[in-house]
Amino acid sequence: MRLAELSERSGVSAAMIKYYLRQGMLAPGRKVGATTADYDESHLRRLRLVRALIEVGGLTVARAKEVIGYVDDDSLDRTIRLGAALWALPHGPDPDDGDASVAVARVEVDRLLDALGWTTARELGELSPDHRALIVAVATLHRLGYSWDAEFMAPYAELMHRAAVRDLDFVETHPSEEEKVEVAVAATVLFDPVLRALHRLAQQEESARRYGL
Amino acid sequence: MRLAELSERSGVSAAMIKYYLRQGMLAPGRKVGATTADYDESHLRRLRLVRALIEVGGLTVARAKEVIGYVDDDSLDRTIRLGAALWALPHGPDPDDGDASVAVARVEVDRLLDALGWTTARELGELSPDHRALIVAVATLHRLGYSWDAEFMAPYAELMHRAAVRDLDFVETHPSEEEKVEVAVAATVLFDPVLRALHRLAQQEESARRYGL
Repeated sequence: MRLAELSERSGVSAAMIKYYLRQGMLAPGRKVGATTADYDESHLRRLRLVRALIEVGGLTVARAKEVIGYVDDDSLDRTIRLGAALWALPHGPDPDDGDASVAVARVEVDRLLDALGWTTARELGELSPDHRALIVAVATLHRLGYSWDAEFMAPYAELMHRAAVRDLDFVETHPSEEEKVEVAVAATVLFDPVLRALHRLAQQEESARRYGL
Repeated sequence: MRLAELSERSGVSAAMIKYYLRQGMLAPGRKVGATTADYDESHLRRLRLVRALIEVGGLTVARAKEVIGYVDDDSLDRTIRLGAALWALPHGPDPDDGDASVAVARVEVDRLLDALGWTTARELGELSPDHRALIVAVATLHRLGYSWDAEFMAPYAELMHRAAVRDLDFVETHPSEEEKVEVAVAATVLFDPVLRALHRLAQQEESARRYGL
């Protein structure tokens, strides 16, 4: 397809597409003349990923470029590419070591991961920004008087693990290696708002079932 | 306890506590002298809720005051108080009726709720801000080329319903009616960051199990 059609189908303006091409966030099209190039489904997919990162994930263009850089780095194997891309997403503040609630949260998170048998998470520890984000979230709860311990959180973690199994099953329905990495990154950003909305709607539904409307 | 201890235990400065008292977001303490008052656990709990709304939920003080107003309105029964308070939380933009993806999302969300048998959610429809938020999230996915239909989302919705059952079981461990409403509002704001962190950590764990680290 030509640039005009790529713009129409992706919802990204021609000017922005040219910008992403210059930034190396989108591969050049196949040259079919002095001034025209041909684009395919891979370009469309890439533009959707960029829009997901910026519009839903709230990333800056510079940060999106960094994430895309890892997605495209095929000198790395899939796990590393995917991990690097996901770890480059914004994750909020790091745990504050001077905070007593952080110390409590660290203990409970470690106990939780042990109880769950999440050995990779346990091994990577705070190298992982998601691990740090969990400590920050649990420390905040603790500081606000909600002392959720490993036993309280374990059933929630099991539910989230079932969701993650589905996420990866979905990623695997995509044929090429490149698509798998792209879809995994997009899904991480795009699933959050859907799950949050489903969770609140489920709370409302369950509340109505128990107490009437 | 006196104001100084309330400040110390809640982590809220004495000046802010006085401000919340003036705003009616915190009930006056029991007078024990011309210039001193005595505060109890209910004051502490209330300050924690206010902090949760502002610090974790990102609400403005004005918006937090509105939410608290519903929590305190005991002319309403619990379901209505709780519903009003939760609906007053920020929910992002409303669906854009001119958007073709919104029309598709509406159909899929209705089909999803029918399949799940979530009759209250179906009946309230877009009166509920959570329902509107779900339509917006699904429409965004659709626009970005991820056409998640009712069948794809149903297992995620079931998982979120199980989480909601646990949420409400937790709320019910609190003895008084007032506490139940307060804790339910706090939990809605506070659970999101924990679930999001658990979800990402679970994705990482599952990915390592399938493809190695």
